[in-house]
Amino acid sequence: MAKQKNNTPATADDAVLTQFAPLIYVAWADGTLTKDEAARIRRHVSKGGHAEDVVARVLKRWLNPEAPPTPSDLNALLERIRRTPRDRTPVAPADRGQGQPRVIEALHEVENALGVGGVDTLSMLLGRGQTGPRPAASFDPDRMRAYIEGARAPIRERVFKILHRPIFNIHRVQTTSLYREQVLACVRELAREGLGGIAFPSEYGGAADIAGSIFAFETLAFHDMSVLVKFGVHFGLFGGSVYQLGTRGHHEKYLRGIITLDLPGCFAMTESAHGSNVRDIETTAVYDPTSREFVIHTPHEGARKDYIGNAALHGRIATVFAQLEVGGESHGVHAFLVPIRDEDGQPMPGVRLEDCGEKVGLHGVDNGRIHFDNVRVPRENLLNRFADVTEAGEYVSSIPSASRRFFTMLGTLVAGRISVAAASNIAARTGLAIAIRHAATRRQFGIDDGPELPLLSYISMQRALLPRLAATYALDAALYDLILRYADAAGGDVREIESLAAGLKAYASRHAMDTLQAAREACGGAGYMMQNRIGGIREDVDVFTTFEGANAVLLQLVAKSLITGLREQFGEMRVWRLVRYVTARATSAMAEKNPIATRRTDPEHLRDADFHDAALRFRENHLLSTLARRLKARIDRGATPVEAMNECQDHSISLAQAHVERIIHEHFRKRVDACADESLKRVLERLRALFALERLEADRAWFLEAGYFEPAKAKAIRSEVNTLCGELEGDALALVDAFGIPPRFTEGQLVAAVQ
Amino acid sequence: MAKQKNNTPATADDAVLTQFAPLIYVAWADGTLTKDEAARIRRHVSKGGHAEDVVARVLKRWLNPEAPPTPSDLNALLERIRRTPRDRTPVAPADRGQGQPRVIEALHEVENALGVGGVDTLSMLLGRGQTGPRPAASFDPDRMRAYIEGARAPIRERVFKILHRPIFNIHRVQTTSLYREQVLACVRELAREGLGGIAFPSEYGGAADIAGSIFAFETLAFHDMSVLVKFGVHFGLFGGSVYQLGTRGHHEKYLRGIITLDLPGCFAMTESAHGSNVRDIETTAVYDPTSREFVIHTPHEGARKDYIGNAALHGRIATVFAQLEVGGESHGVHAFLVPIRDEDGQPMPGVRLEDCGEKVGLHGVDNGRIHFDNVRVPRENLLNRFADVTEAGEYVSSIPSASRRFFTMLGTLVAGRISVAAASNIAARTGLAIAIRHAATRRQFGIDDGPELPLLSYISMQRALLPRLAATYALDAALYDLILRYADAAGGDVREIESLAAGLKAYASRHAMDTLQAAREACGGAGYMMQNRIGGIREDVDVFTTFEGANAVLLQLVAKSLITGLREQFGEMRVWRLVRYVTARATSAMAEKNPIATRRTDPEHLRDADFHDAALRFRENHLLSTLARRLKARIDRGATPVEAMNECQDHSISLAQAHVERIIHEHFRKRVDACADESLKRVLERLRALFALERLEADRAWFLEAGYFEPAKAKAIRSEVNTLCGELEGDALALVDAFGIPPRFTEGQLVAAVQ
Repeated sequence: MAKQKNNTPATADDAVLTQFAPLIYVAWADGTLTKDEAARIRRHVSKGGHAEDVVARVLKRWLNPEAPPTPSDLNALLERIRRTPRDRTPVAPADRGQGQPRVIEALHEVENALGVGGVDTLSMLLGRGQTGPRPAASFDPDRMRAYIEGARAPIRERVFKILHRPIFNIHRVQTTSLYREQVLACVRELAREGLGGIAFPSEYGGAADIAGSIFAFETLAFHDMSVLVKFGVHFGLFGGSVYQLGTRGHHEKYLRGIITLDLPGCFAMTESAHGSNVRDIETTAVYDPTSREFVIHTPHEGARKDYIGNAALHGRIATVFAQLEVGGESHGVHAFLVPIRDEDGQPMPGVRLEDCGEKVGLHGVDNGRIHFDNVRVPRENLLNRFADVTEAGEYVSSIPSASRRFFTMLGTLVAGRISVAAASNIAARTGLAIAIRHAATRRQFGIDDGPELPLLSYISMQRALLPRLAATYALDAALYDLILRYADAAGGDVREIESLAAGLKAYASRHAMDTLQAAREACGGAGYMMQNRIGGIREDVDVFTTFEGANAVLLQLVAKSLITGLREQFGEMRVWRLVRYVTARATSAMAEKNPIATRRTDPEHLRDADFHDAALRFRENHLLSTLARRLKARIDRGATPVEAMNECQDHSISLAQAHVERIIHEHFRKRVDACADESLKRVLERLRALFALERLEADRAWFLEAGYFEPAKAKAIRSEVNTLCGELEGDALALVDAFGIPPRFTEGQLVAAVQ
Repeated sequence: MAKQKNNTPATADDAVLTQFAPLIYVAWADGTLTKDEAARIRRHVSKGGHAEDVVARVLKRWLNPEAPPTPSDLNALLERIRRTPRDRTPVAPADRGQGQPRVIEALHEVENALGVGGVDTLSMLLGRGQTGPRPAASFDPDRMRAYIEGARAPIRERVFKILHRPIFNIHRVQTTSLYREQVLACVRELAREGLGGIAFPSEYGGAADIAGSIFAFETLAFHDMSVLVKFGVHFGLFGGSVYQLGTRGHHEKYLRGIITLDLPGCFAMTESAHGSNVRDIETTAVYDPTSREFVIHTPHEGARKDYIGNAALHGRIATVFAQLEVGGESHGVHAFLVPIRDEDGQPMPGVRLEDCGEKVGLHGVDNGRIHFDNVRVPRENLLNRFADVTEAGEYVSSIPSASRRFFTMLGTLVAGRISVAAASNIAARTGLAIAIRHAATRRQFGIDDGPELPLLSYISMQRALLPRLAATYALDAALYDLILRYADAAGGDVREIESLAAGLKAYASRHAMDTLQAAREACGGAGYMMQNRIGGIREDVDVFTTFEGANAVLLQLVAKSLITGLREQFGEMRVWRLVRYVTARATSAMAEKNPIATRRTDPEHLRDADFHDAALRFRENHLLSTLARRLKARIDRGATPVEAMNECQDHSISLAQAHVERIIHEHFRKRVDACADESLKRVLERLRALFALERLEADRAWFLEAGYFEPAKAKAIRSEVNTLCGELEGDALALVDAFGIPPRFTEGQLVAAVQ
């Protein structure tokens, strides 16, 4: 390779070289240049007003395949390009569109001549651009926080204060067993502060504040999920079962010890072979009228109680769900209080306890298995609010139907589902706060040798995080309202609340997992460190999709409840007439929208809450009526309702999700509309629009199939989602600041990694 | 509540009671019955040929709101319903459609009267059905295994044999530091067996078998991901960099020690502040001509090497990527061999080493950070295959363009990407094997008090697992071919292989994560136990989406390469003409299909490989031409290519994914077509159709928007996917058996949980 020693040609040559520097640089970008290629470039270049012979001379020298420039030559050329005054090279953003910039022109010339070069090369070529300062947020995060926390603010503040005590510093280098002890100590401290008793009647030391108890619980999710779950198992599931399934005698005897955590308890429902199908659990409880005792027994290995929180180490008593048998007659599932450990922590006679061992997450919770070998408990240990056995061995119940009794008993799980939903959405908040702060500050790549850009300025990053931020805000509104309604005993239809709790639990836990996964990946390698917290929280929250009702099962409950509601609503009307009616209604709802709504693509329409609401309602109604029709067709062909539901399982699940999204949107819309502060309202309205529109986009195939969107509209929605993301980028940091998460929960001081 | 003592009425009453038992049971299902409701039911029931007065008497007695039946009464009624002979109650599957079954009729009557009751109640009512025995698989899994393993079979067998040695029994109760030592011991054992050297020239102790080395590597993924990654870091990344970036001198000096693992090494590219954007890393390597040394330096905290495998404990030397400066001139990123620990494991002078601490997964890999404080290495430590510095301090390179040099150097990452893609797909296999075995054997719920059904018979479970099983089979075909092509030095276009490696790595790692998450959830609570393995594998594999190139960045590389290919293909043609040409071609391709293809919904067409291929091609071409058009429009408006690419980032990523799916399908189709065994071919063809169709379904919104599907077709595709899932259910177990995973890797003996 002959070296070009002299990089300073004569003046005319110099001007020409400056002119052609970008072209030459690009031409050599691929490392080699054949004779043919060089000739092609020389033919194609515009002479730019320079003397032809000078141009020919310079190009011959610089585009000579037999004497390629050295690396230093090319560096010098690059320096020359960079030194060329700004008005001759691009590209300050403001200058865009004022004629074809020269460097790009050069690139095009070479590209057209050779079909090579391109994007990567060019980024080394151009002058350094400027990115403006990050725009300030459009609102005050503290005011936003106050608005969204609403009535929760005082209890949240109270819990945060407690969580700042040294005992809650969970350090990273510890074994599973030390971690479990520390988690127990944390729960004890919370009990000492009265947080465990909030939901219980004041006569036993509680505060009789159901909403407050859930708000306190969800706040624990900012700190450590093992503490949250252990707290929930004892106070919520175990304590809740005693309170709700038991009667005065049980309350008198147990509630004080539950509230103080002097009597740590378990909730023993799930068995190894029966998780979702509680009705078919196999633990038996046979009444012995001679001794007036129940005999609790595990007939085989598959019937052992499994995954039971508090069972491996700390639980002393358990609410055990078992098939009640009285005088040879089976009465279905009932709940019994069964001591499992004595005061020294030794298993009670006939009780065998095992540790489930290491789990994917929640390492600080001692999940275990319980086997019963004909364990006897007194008759009073039946939690007898809904059914009892007399001393003489007569089974009595205020609810004659076994099925109805069963579902009434399961109704006590509602508080747990609401709590898990709320905690899921807190987990999503923590993940988003960490990831959005990372993405807004970490810079990677840049445009044209300008400063590197924050990750959050990339569309793919905005897409991964901002719709989920919007969904988190939206879900919070729905959950908040549900908690208040549930807490208000007069809050209305129990079945509706049960269905909502099931739907929101499934939706929120799915949302949390997807959000944490996206947040983990948004943080790149840093997200893989336990110190980052996101990965650990994801591992903990993972089981939220499974426990307190597996999500797929819960969504089918929601669908069944909607189908039942449909039947009730129409009273005596025969099913097929009803289906025709609903279908007609849905079709006409669509027809009303047609053709204007299906075609409108202007931003005003696309952001309109009425459009979103109508679309979400249309989808729900349509899915409901078509599901009813499909079920009817199957039943007419001789299928049983259960078979029919199984065959339409995917349809049911879609219906349930559509229902939940419609409800979430309604609640969020109410919260936005109720906001009196214009600066908050503006950004909340953007979040609402982004939530709704992105959900419509995600399911646009369905809307296209249903004829509710035309293709142009679906495309316009996608592009409007991008626009909304761009508009929210500048507010993203403030929106996660408004979650009000104490810094130590997001900055890596609190890491419960097990080493 | 007055008790009905006598449950044995006179004969006529008895017959009527049997007739109305279901109706009565359903009527009380909700627990209460008002006078009005009772009257309504009595009005509505069909008399069924019985004497009117008897019917009235029985119903009056049993539907008396003032004397509701006791639980025992209702139990007796249920027994009566169950005892009723089969031909009078439904429903053996074969009997379906032969008239309205009585119980369902009863339900409908009550429903229509009251608008209550339903599915849950009914499942307690009906006679016990039978489910047939699970059909045997349609093919022999061993023959399937032999067919899909192909040339890999011997190396896989060899590696499995080694992995069965006691040293590879990784037990669950151990600390991170013990686990790391055991992982090192495993890698040493693999080195002793010569597995680390397979890819290297035989003169240094290797086997010069590149394909074999990747096949051996992927097999390790069945065992333990920490062993896999530590093995890959040392032999693949570090060894590969010395071999591919170095020259004879480096090979002579280092390769033997690398192959024997006597010289454990690191690959130090990523910095805290620069992951994806390697070009802008900030570690410097300044040539000092007086001492003929390079001075390696970390200018600030953000420039420390981060997440470096082997750096925390075991690495003694590192390939360090740094900005080379010679005589004040910068020459971009180059690689240097820098000793980091002496033989006693103490850090070398000027080198500061830190442990990254606990990670989300890969607990057995010692990732660390490296800081250099003006560390001097001899001139020979520059890995100088593509560029060198003479003693006198002159920079020389056979590749004049810095950009080209950079990408040539990065080209050495290709093997790593292919290996990660292959290992990802093994992880998916393990997850599927565990989850499908669980879902095929665990039973939950049942139809009408029949035996509980295996989870895999539910549509939602089939949907979660079977398309992913198909995708795993499909991906394997593409990866297998890519490995053979990459290994064959004459295998063609380097850039095409680089692009494929990037695309398949992104696709396979995403697929693995999604599959493992679905598999984890399919196993319910059991899936949350570390013993189940899925959760732990997911934690390990999680980082596969990030390392060896973040997925979003890799997919953009693929898109850029397609755009570049488009330009090359059309040589001198100007961009806009070319875009018009491609668009016209795509449109006419669609027009050819119209209207027949867009409307056909028959299964023959929907399963046709030609249809799938055409649809996948259409999507890719269309996305490519529209991307080209959008880029051009932006560049015409004055944007730089980088800006334009950023603005179209989501479009680029869609294009890359479409490209990868088209390629995967092509390779899988070839594998199916080449199969000579009809029984294998039949099930492989089903898998192929399921893979293709489910991918089209997943993106049906796009096809609807593009006018390539009509709504009816999109719906038909969805339903055909369900049908294919149902057809594959019976073969699912055999299909995971055909993965040939040794039982100890799926049955919980091997659990690397850290306690």
